[in-house]
Amino acid sequence: MRSTICPQPNFLDLAAAPSSAPAKKAIGMPLHPTLFLGAQDVVELIRNKGLVTTLRDVARTIHEDFLRWDDFDKAARIANHSPLGVIELMPIADAHTYTFKYVNGHPANTARGLPTVMAFGVLADVATGMPLLVSELTLITAIRTAATSVVAAQALARPESRSMALIGNGAQAEFQALAFHCLMGIDEIRLYDTDPFATEKLVAHLRQSPDAANLRLKVCTSAAQAVQGADIVTTVTADKRNAVILTADMLEPGMHLNAVGGDCPGKTELAPEVMQAAWVFVEYEPQSRIEGELQHMPADFAVTELWQVLHGDVVGRNNEEDITLFDSVGFALEDFSALRYIYALARANKRGHALQLVPDLADPKDLYASLAPAPDL
Amino acid sequence: MRSTICPQPNFLDLAAAPSSAPAKKAIGMPLHPTLFLGAQDVVELIRNKGLVTTLRDVARTIHEDFLRWDDFDKAARIANHSPLGVIELMPIADAHTYTFKYVNGHPANTARGLPTVMAFGVLADVATGMPLLVSELTLITAIRTAATSVVAAQALARPESRSMALIGNGAQAEFQALAFHCLMGIDEIRLYDTDPFATEKLVAHLRQSPDAANLRLKVCTSAAQAVQGADIVTTVTADKRNAVILTADMLEPGMHLNAVGGDCPGKTELAPEVMQAAWVFVEYEPQSRIEGELQHMPADFAVTELWQVLHGDVVGRNNEEDITLFDSVGFALEDFSALRYIYALARANKRGHALQLVPDLADPKDLYASLAPAPDL
Repeated sequence: MRSTICPQPNFLDLAAAPSSAPAKKAIGMPLHPTLFLGAQDVVELIRNKGLVTTLRDVARTIHEDFLRWDDFDKAARIANHSPLGVIELMPIADAHTYTFKYVNGHPANTARGLPTVMAFGVLADVATGMPLLVSELTLITAIRTAATSVVAAQALARPESRSMALIGNGAQAEFQALAFHCLMGIDEIRLYDTDPFATEKLVAHLRQSPDAANLRLKVCTSAAQAVQGADIVTTVTADKRNAVILTADMLEPGMHLNAVGGDCPGKTELAPEVMQAAWVFVEYEPQSRIEGELQHMPADFAVTELWQVLHGDVVGRNNEEDITLFDSVGFALEDFSALRYIYALARANKRGHALQLVPDLADPKDLYASLAPAPDL
Repeated sequence: MRSTICPQPNFLDLAAAPSSAPAKKAIGMPLHPTLFLGAQDVVELIRNKGLVTTLRDVARTIHEDFLRWDDFDKAARIANHSPLGVIELMPIADAHTYTFKYVNGHPANTARGLPTVMAFGVLADVATGMPLLVSELTLITAIRTAATSVVAAQALARPESRSMALIGNGAQAEFQALAFHCLMGIDEIRLYDTDPFATEKLVAHLRQSPDAANLRLKVCTSAAQAVQGADIVTTVTADKRNAVILTADMLEPGMHLNAVGGDCPGKTELAPEVMQAAWVFVEYEPQSRIEGELQHMPADFAVTELWQVLHGDVVGRNNEEDITLFDSVGFALEDFSALRYIYALARANKRGHALQLVPDLADPKDLYASLAPAPDL
């Protein structure tokens, strides 16, 4: 295999030049390069920035973009289902930038050494269709999901919320814990998972994290015990089945429920009575009706889109007694925000590799010349 | 910018190992690499294989896959339109393989040094969601489009067809000309384009091509002149508008019309009377109703999906007098075929680069560990 050689000096062309402006061609550098960020690039960018700082920046970026809701050409994601899992595409665009995410969900993957969820994304120029960035999003999706949970909780939970139940202690749990502790002042987290090793791993990680030095952790023996007395309840279990993690009898006045794990047809976490007892907020209603906890409710079950609360059009919580529920499935706009954030971060840090996704054509109207038998043949 | 170093010996792991089987990790090699084929890789693969051989192989692959029509999970492509163009995603999957293509259409691009149409695609493992291949498809799309035209014409045109009118002599024209000459025995092509320089470029390319040594070319001064007496009429103009290249008075008994240029809302080439005068065949009806020449016809206008003819369920042409029309818009299955072909070709030729789209995780259930502050920090 040959390596793509991209001399450092050329990176500036790549990072700075508008994609559609024919850049000065350098040896080994495509005329219209696409920036590639692999998993290791993203790991180093985020470690240098700091995980908590990244969570905070991504949450702010998501909040900004949700305030521009009407600027976006939106659609429910397109899913291809198979017996073992699902593969989805999540496109979205405003007047200047188009992004999409490719993401799968295959619960059996971990037994094969692969993550359950793998993702990558593309950011492109709406004016030309030129793909500007291809980036891993497996790691970034974990960050944007936790950031979105906090953006919603800041608008819906009681401001004095301090304790959170975290049910499901898998791959997403550390991100939820750190985001709620560092961005929202949660100082006690009550942990439960059917797999004690998952909880053990989560506790070990949080104990080692300097960002969680002041975070109290309570390991619980049941979901009910974890929920009892919690201001916020986060459910983020992984099984692709209709499970019932929360029942109505576990609810307490004033709770905010952050339901993250129910995110595709046949994968839910809440009893219908929990939905009926709460004010339900969603990201993008047409998608949530298909994928969210909402899939079990009648088509006319009332919900509010989160952006309306952030935008000040609708009140999130009316009083201290309301039970609020964020039925989170993950929406393309959150990946749009994450992609524009990581793209800017990579360019500022001159990080990444050049891909030749677009051929170098002497005449852009002439594709044949580059494939015709070479003159010397 | 750093380069992705992938020592030759590791390529075999990449090319041969099933994606989900943790391969032996080598320095600089991701644990779960995704094969990347840039434009130059594809140029060299196709030049080594030969353009006509590639056209023939891709046509055979498309034919094979159309015969398996019911094996595929199909959907109309998802488009994001803007004043300057469109960006589309085209996903499809069978029980084993998932593919999608990203493709744009921006007629003003050529003035900015970019192709009007740029594309790339991904091939993934349905069992795990692992992305196995990321490949340029700008060049490959030109090949699969011409190959698809021939697959349809072989089923719909009169077997003794020898002359073809080629209206629109832009980037797709050489591929159509060579495919119909070498794969279908067309020995005379009558050329017309509103831009004489486009026709001049096409003639020069075909005169230089050893594959077209026996092909007679007639440059015409109007579409009507080009069409007169032609057995097959191919329209492949580029303007994104509702143009009328063919009118009913230009039709002759027994003609096969290969309408390639009308492929998105507001972009058509034929007068409605031409549709009414012909037996109309399409790739995937739900998509063609939105994007094809069909967009001007009533919702109940009768059409036949091409696969039914290839499969022998429906007769294509009843007699020598029928006028047949392939209303081609480009369907995801053609890109599925092209992607599985180029993937096999690249692996057989040990061609490509490794991308780390999937992070190397010691524990696939633990994303946090790779982003946590490094121990030495």
